[in-house]
Amino acid sequence: MALSGSTMQLTRAADYGVRVMIHLATLPERERALLPSLAEATGAPLSFLSKVLQALCRAGFITSRRGQAGGFEMLSTGRAASIRMVIEAVDGPIRLNLCMIPGTSCNRKRICPAHPVWAKAQEAMLNVLNTATIAELAVEAKNPKQ
Amino acid sequence: MALSGSTMQLTRAADYGVRVMIHLATLPERERALLPSLAEATGAPLSFLSKVLQALCRAGFITSRRGQAGGFEMLSTGRAASIRMVIEAVDGPIRLNLCMIPGTSCNRKRICPAHPVWAKAQEAMLNVLNTATIAELAVEAKNPKQ
Repeated sequence: MALSGSTMQLTRAADYGVRVMIHLATLPERERALLPSLAEATGAPLSFLSKVLQALCRAGFITSRRGQAGGFEMLSTGRAASIRMVIEAVDGPIRLNLCMIPGTSCNRKRICPAHPVWAKAQEAMLNVLNTATIAELAVEAKNPKQ
Repeated sequence: MALSGSTMQLTRAADYGVRVMIHLATLPERERALLPSLAEATGAPLSFLSKVLQALCRAGFITSRRGQAGGFEMLSTGRAASIRMVIEAVDGPIRLNLCMIPGTSCNRKRICPAHPVWAKAQEAMLNVLNTATIAELAVEAKNPKQ
């Protein structure tokens, strides 16, 4: 029974964002890739992926050029980015629960015994997502374990 | 910028589920509470909370009786339940990403370098949510730290 959809699940947009970042990081330096080839490599719908790529451009992780020899290109900041940074570039800050938004997002914060549990669970998850970088995962993508 | 809503966030339904379970566990054993008082204690909209309570009844965590002296009552299985069990009773299994659903939920699983990262992040989060129980949090609710 799901009352209200997928709980605690990464959005498709962020998933495609991570996929496309890893793929771009596997290409030779300064090589550009066109949207259709990126859609094929990631299995993402073309128009949806286009919006994800715009967000990654705005974050300064990749760049795009028009015209001949145009396309999307990985930047060094993007290569160094963690999985968390990519997710947040696409979807905004990760907050396991509304009460994790700083300030007065929930007036029960000070008395609620569940609040520290959400905080600990978020921290444990973010520790993993902070540690894995695009560069590292691109190396694994190029040398898959048998 | 959020392309597609709150990423990795607990649903309101599951949040209210945890709140109402903790509240019911603070009541004296065998005491029953009526829906309006539970809505007030949790800050949840009445009709929405009613659906959450139905899910918690179906999970066998609480029971409800009609008529005089009716209302919702905590059961021992509910008291012993972890936060994860409560979330999943309301929202179904927690899957940080679609690829965490067993089987053929994503055909990239075997080659995708991000898949082990999602698995590790989910495990880290679930470790926290498996450990905290309703009974334990109810004790904290009754004895708030100053």
